[in-house]
Amino acid sequence: MNWKARLLALDGLMPSLDDEGRLAWGTLADAAEDAELCFLGIENGKACFAAVPPRGDASPRMANPQLWSLMATLQHEDLALYGGARSLVDWHARHRFCAQCGGSTVIAKGGWQRNCEACGTQHFPRTDPVTIMLVEHEGRLMLGRGLGWPEGRFSALAGFVEPGESIEEAVAREVFEEAGVRVRDVNYIASQPWPFPSQLMIGCHSFADSDELDIDTTEMAEVVFFTREEVKDALAGSGPFVAPPTHAIAHHLMHWWVRK
Amino acid sequence: MNWKARLLALDGLMPSLDDEGRLAWGTLADAAEDAELCFLGIENGKACFAAVPPRGDASPRMANPQLWSLMATLQHEDLALYGGARSLVDWHARHRFCAQCGGSTVIAKGGWQRNCEACGTQHFPRTDPVTIMLVEHEGRLMLGRGLGWPEGRFSALAGFVEPGESIEEAVAREVFEEAGVRVRDVNYIASQPWPFPSQLMIGCHSFADSDELDIDTTEMAEVVFFTREEVKDALAGSGPFVAPPTHAIAHHLMHWWVRK
Ligand SMILES: [Zn+2]
Ligand SMILES: [Zn+2]
Repeated sequence: MNWKARLLALDGLMPSLDDEGRLAWGTLADAAEDAELCFLGIENGKACFAAVPPRGDASPRMANPQLWSLMATLQHEDLALYGGARSLVDWHARHRFCAQCGGSTVIAKGGWQRNCEACGTQHFPRTDPVTIMLVEHEGRLMLGRGLGWPEGRFSALAGFVEPGESIEEAVAREVFEEAGVRVRDVNYIASQPWPFPSQLMIGCHSFADSDELDIDTTEMAEVVFFTREEVKDALAGSGPFVAPPTHAIAHHLMHWWVRK
Repeated sequence: MNWKARLLALDGLMPSLDDEGRLAWGTLADAAEDAELCFLGIENGKACFAAVPPRGDASPRMANPQLWSLMATLQHEDLALYGGARSLVDWHARHRFCAQCGGSTVIAKGGWQRNCEACGTQHFPRTDPVTIMLVEHEGRLMLGRGLGWPEGRFSALAGFVEPGESIEEAVAREVFEEAGVRVRDVNYIASQPWPFPSQLMIGCHSFADSDELDIDTTEMAEVVFFTREEVKDALAGSGPFVAPPTHAIAHHLMHWWVRK
């Protein structure tokens, strides 16, 4: 039997880095006496855990520029591990009560479940499917700037898959709602987890029937069709708009489209 | 202004059919005085609503044979509408309390949100992404029979996408966990909503590196590789196993594979 274990160093939901820029780890002794621990898996013969933030922890739930720059420095495996751990402990922190009866819940199955102490209902970590889509019309790509985004920053349109929808239906509804355009030939390209708080980003490509836009101004500040050259330049950091960061699936999708 | 509205006839979560086998509808007057109503959309100029089942409603949450046969008789549009409505009202019925603080929640935004009366947290309907996968090895298809399934009934392996995973990673993990086989070249095929209670089924194809199985006997009763001819015959109702019903995505995926 091997008792080797390590605890991901988190300040609430924020990661800590060691001198080499890798995720920092401590031991189980670093956890608070009453901390709920999630089992993340075994790596290099050691069981890896992360602690659920204590009640009242005020870590920002959404991505912020500081965290984004930090994430951009992480190696791929560290990014994946941090993302999964963050989603999981954040879910626990936000599900201390039973949605069915209001009773208290307790962590179970090493952190992959919570059980209600009052009614026994089992609750499972949530992952929200989100479609994010390239929309192409006559060789140009539709990108949008959301309300409240910095001037000049554009990305692919995106939206949650709603109950009762397929991926393809969600893409078509979202583009029509936000940009007023009908799309066809929706194709899946790639997927990526995104831990703010726990999304499965589903990247698709589609063709628009027209470039006559009718923008939902309660959601979008601008929607613009860019040429392949403009998108290519933006990805290289010298285009007419600011592209998404390299670790975001939108960046990957735009690269795919430029090379296509 | 048009005040035309109709209410989906539901007995708890079960649909009612009219004489022509279509979904039955009533008027808003049919709803209980204190019923929570979800707005489903506008069809033929009428606003369509469904009522959240009252507290204590004991409708079965999972699919049962009676509901499956009924669903098999529904037209495509009715099936989609019932599925979306069922997922939505069932989510409301199971989220009357706030997971964050245990307070009471109330319906908001026409049924696409619940708000906590105590702490103000907004809650949104949940959709769980599930991968369901064809696994091919040297022209044969891996199918499984889950524990507790009737003798002879086989379908594609499936499992929830966990926090921190891409679709492709979820497929590989699930097949390795349930069947002990490594897969490669995971490709997306099709998706479908599945309202038990609210899943987004993401259908993929992959190739197994081997057909030497190591089955997880806590999940699966049998895992078997079938030939194309055997799968074809099963879909036609005369094969060596019972195939999934026509409205399940597994049926559609198996058809895709037979024609491929
Ligand atoms: Zn409970
Ligand atoms: Zn609350």
